[in-house]
Amino acid sequence: MDMEKVNSMGFSEFVDVFGNVIEKCPLVAAAVWSQRPFSGSEDLEKHFFDFIDALPRSGQEGILRCHPDLAGRDLQQGTLTAESLREQSQAGLTSLDADDRLRLQKLNAQYRERFGFPFVLAARLSDRAEVPQELARRLRCQPESELRTALGEVKKICHLRMADLLGADAARVEPLRG
Amino acid sequence: MDMEKVNSMGFSEFVDVFGNVIEKCPLVAAAVWSQRPFSGSEDLEKHFFDFIDALPRSGQEGILRCHPDLAGRDLQQGTLTAESLREQSQAGLTSLDADDRLRLQKLNAQYRERFGFPFVLAARLSDRAEVPQELARRLRCQPESELRTALGEVKKICHLRMADLLGADAARVEPLRG
Repeated sequence: MDMEKVNSMGFSEFVDVFGNVIEKCPLVAAAVWSQRPFSGSEDLEKHFFDFIDALPRSGQEGILRCHPDLAGRDLQQGTLTAESLREQSQAGLTSLDADDRLRLQKLNAQYRERFGFPFVLAARLSDRAEVPQELARRLRCQPESELRTALGEVKKICHLRMADLLGADAARVEPLRG
Repeated sequence: MDMEKVNSMGFSEFVDVFGNVIEKCPLVAAAVWSQRPFSGSEDLEKHFFDFIDALPRSGQEGILRCHPDLAGRDLQQGTLTAESLREQSQAGLTSLDADDRLRLQKLNAQYRERFGFPFVLAARLSDRAEVPQELARRLRCQPESELRTALGEVKKICHLRMADLLGADAARVEPLRG
């Protein structure tokens, strides 16, 4: 999909296509449509990131709270979004054995209790062995820096989902990990 | 549901319950949870309204763009939210004849073209005769005042949905219409 096509979209089509690049927050895509035309995929992405960065802290926490736990309730109940199911599946999180699932659920619960939002991670850049290690590590971080880290993961997820839609080179995300 | 119960909710339960009082914008409820405890239903509602009022203009337009057309595509395709289907049904918009539906679709298209967001109306406070009249009237308004009017309708919808959830007296919305 090229940028000419994106810039020609009415808001309904734009929200249909980009409404879940920020998990369960079509409001962000619906707001970003106001900023068209976009000069390219980086410009488009920058408007999503700018919108998130300009939100008050409660709004930024709100974006995180719209994300599901990894290997959590929504996966068990079949209520994950298509994008999240694919990402968790690619990371091997949909086929954990009972012990690993329980371990992750306990860590998720501790994280939610400590920070007031769920543990958010770009699962496609991780795997089933790394996820609980990273969760345990971030559980020890300070709330201020953890909010920034978690929003950084939201942006990585957004970047990868947008690359899927635009056909851009998803490998470009790797430097963002460092 | 009393406020003690609301204040005891974790964010997942809170978003499950209040996530659609602003149509398709669970982000707002997820942000408002940061402001607990709430002293009562008016205080809770005020936090939703304050969040909307504090958004940049693109975000306010974004909230409007998350709303479906009345008697539009989502109704035809069966993709309305449960709340919107009930409201449109109560206003008689789910049983329009073909001529009335076509008339409304044309007006909706003109409105979207003129303002860059869909026509939003608290359908439960209207009926199938009033809706096209009000749409035709608002189509002639200035963009600045129409944005304010439309956000006022979002707040009426929010108030009525919240009253359904909290069991408050929904009749209290009437003075807001004037």
